[in-house]
Amino acid sequence: MEIILKREALSNTLQNINSVVDKSTTKPILSNFVIRTIDGNDSNVEFSSTDYELSLVELLPAEIKEQGSICVNAKKVFDIVRELQADDVHIRSTEQLWIHITCGTSETRLPSVEVGLYPQTVLEELPQSMTITVDDLRRCIDMTLFAAITNESRRNLMGVCLSSAGDQKTRWLSTDGHRLAQTVKSVDSLNFDADKEVIVPRKALTEVRRVAELFGENVNITFDDRVMQFSGGAIIFKTRLIEGKFPNCDPIIPKDNTLEIIVDRESFISSLRIVSSISTEKLRPVKLIISPGTLKLESEKADYGEVVDEIEIEYEGEPFQIGFNSRYLLDVLSVLESKNVKLECKNSMSPTIIKSPDDESFLSVIMPLRVEW
Amino acid sequence: MEIILKREALSNTLQNINSVVDKSTTKPILSNFVIRTIDGNDSNVEFSSTDYELSLVELLPAEIKEQGSICVNAKKVFDIVRELQADDVHIRSTEQLWIHITCGTSETRLPSVEVGLYPQTVLEELPQSMTITVDDLRRCIDMTLFAAITNESRRNLMGVCLSSAGDQKTRWLSTDGHRLAQTVKSVDSLNFDADKEVIVPRKALTEVRRVAELFGENVNITFDDRVMQFSGGAIIFKTRLIEGKFPNCDPIIPKDNTLEIIVDRESFISSLRIVSSISTEKLRPVKLIISPGTLKLESEKADYGEVVDEIEIEYEGEPFQIGFNSRYLLDVLSVLESKNVKLECKNSMSPTIIKSPDDESFLSVIMPLRVEW
Repeated sequence: MEIILKREALSNTLQNINSVVDKSTTKPILSNFVIRTIDGNDSNVEFSSTDYELSLVELLPAEIKEQGSICVNAKKVFDIVRELQADDVHIRSTEQLWIHITCGTSETRLPSVEVGLYPQTVLEELPQSMTITVDDLRRCIDMTLFAAITNESRRNLMGVCLSSAGDQKTRWLSTDGHRLAQTVKSVDSLNFDADKEVIVPRKALTEVRRVAELFGENVNITFDDRVMQFSGGAIIFKTRLIEGKFPNCDPIIPKDNTLEIIVDRESFISSLRIVSSISTEKLRPVKLIISPGTLKLESEKADYGEVVDEIEIEYEGEPFQIGFNSRYLLDVLSVLESKNVKLECKNSMSPTIIKSPDDESFLSVIMPLRVEW
Repeated sequence: MEIILKREALSNTLQNINSVVDKSTTKPILSNFVIRTIDGNDSNVEFSSTDYELSLVELLPAEIKEQGSICVNAKKVFDIVRELQADDVHIRSTEQLWIHITCGTSETRLPSVEVGLYPQTVLEELPQSMTITVDDLRRCIDMTLFAAITNESRRNLMGVCLSSAGDQKTRWLSTDGHRLAQTVKSVDSLNFDADKEVIVPRKALTEVRRVAELFGENVNITFDDRVMQFSGGAIIFKTRLIEGKFPNCDPIIPKDNTLEIIVDRESFISSLRIVSSISTEKLRPVKLIISPGTLKLESEKADYGEVVDEIEIEYEGEPFQIGFNSRYLLDVLSVLESKNVKLECKNSMSPTIIKSPDDESFLSVIMPLRVEW
């Protein structure tokens, strides 16, 4: 193989490729990636990498001198290309499996691996599909991924559950057992069986979100029960879906929360940050003391000190108090964009809904904490 | 004590205070700092912190309601003040040693410590002195600190050796045994015994450098054999000096290096970065192959690959080759500011001088590596 690529585009692509590459050293073959020329395409080459769960295939404009393919260490190539200065990067393979990378006056020689040893990413025609704008996809991921679980304790919660909400709408849902986040979004050309749901893993959504602007304007999503493909622009992500059943969250979303509190979102964030700043616990518990017109926030009364703050709210019911992990509140407040937010409670012990006052498409539910101070 | 401070100034000062505070937990008292009002000064309070080696004393404008002093945990106060929003921060102590910090609607209550338990920083009249501009001080630190040792293996090399170079000049010198850096700088009002030298610890110079702009235009440095004080603007650093003798580096600085190589500094940096990018060793050895007009750079020939590059140089002697740790070369090239740099060598085995072609005040010496590839 012999190709010439633009350095800057190459460097960006290698960064994406490297994000997918498996960083653990248990499967050394997965530290590599593949470049190949494509039959019948004289102006692009295909870059691909996979960690078995998630694969990325990206097309890059190239001048093709000789067809072929190579498989080479992703981090080495990335580290070298990042330092190069000239505009054109010349990549050539030899029969002895050496890769020569020439740029300006510099020449690099790297060993490579038989392409056949690297797991190939096969793109598929998949039965279910939808088209979503890049902006909507980004919002759907931001509005839900924060509530998905990050550790391996419950694999079925390590992603976002996607299902049809009828009428060309999709429902995106995540939970870690202490809180949930749900957003409903209209999409184009939805072809999604009403009774089906799939769980999209965190890593896939994180990577898709990170490079979202590369998809162009729209992302075409296709899937079956096993895999999902995101394609648009010059890139395609393919991910395995998480096997298992997502818990039925509908019973957890309270229907009879009659106490409504309207809070200025930025004041609420700022007060939560002040009051939680003293805590030594990771999730930083706070107590909210709610009375007509006023929300008082209190940190735990601990040996190392305590903080209180107060903000104005719109509320007309009976005074009551309720505890939360401030981290959970801050997570949802920071993905909302409205001036005000609405908290819907029933009492000190009931799950609380947090949403925009004027947008029914998103809601988050947070379980309260028993506060004993 | 009861004082009112401006939040932004307070926050900046707390950041400086926190840099000095001992982060280890072996001496819990040192996690605190002190605020005290000053007899006869109605418009400033004094902040101070120390880790026994290095102390910082900073004056801050304040409205003083009641004289007094407090000693309180530095990180807690910093974490809280960072989140505050209103302009004025009110700090008040009670007889039960509680500190109340009020800002806008928020109120914080923190436990404090008897001020008498905290080691007091006593500023001294010291016999030796000089005045240096902030810019010059910054340059002197940048030009030498990189070559000082970072680990504890040789305590006397963990700083920069300062001595008089006669004629109102100071000599700043550092070495880690593999390289040295030396700069000679004119100062004002130098009062420094010709046969004396002091070793200023790395931490003091790092902190002084970090907040240099707070000194104003000039820094007044006073010292004896034990301690040094840097004062200017509203801040004073006091540091213990490193006990021990700094090695005599004069014999290491070669006098008969007759081979002169002039290299464009930025091209040299870029080539070194490319060629060393493949190395897996921390110090990234490279080989320089020097011939008239051309410098060829080569990485080690390793199983994982190799890189070569080439740049134009001014050189008219016999061809020869010499190895270096590229990290050492890059360190000195990045503190120089001239377009070109000059390398002065004798042969493949001799210490090499690196400096600006037109500035005799600075030089660095790097020991070559035996390269066997």
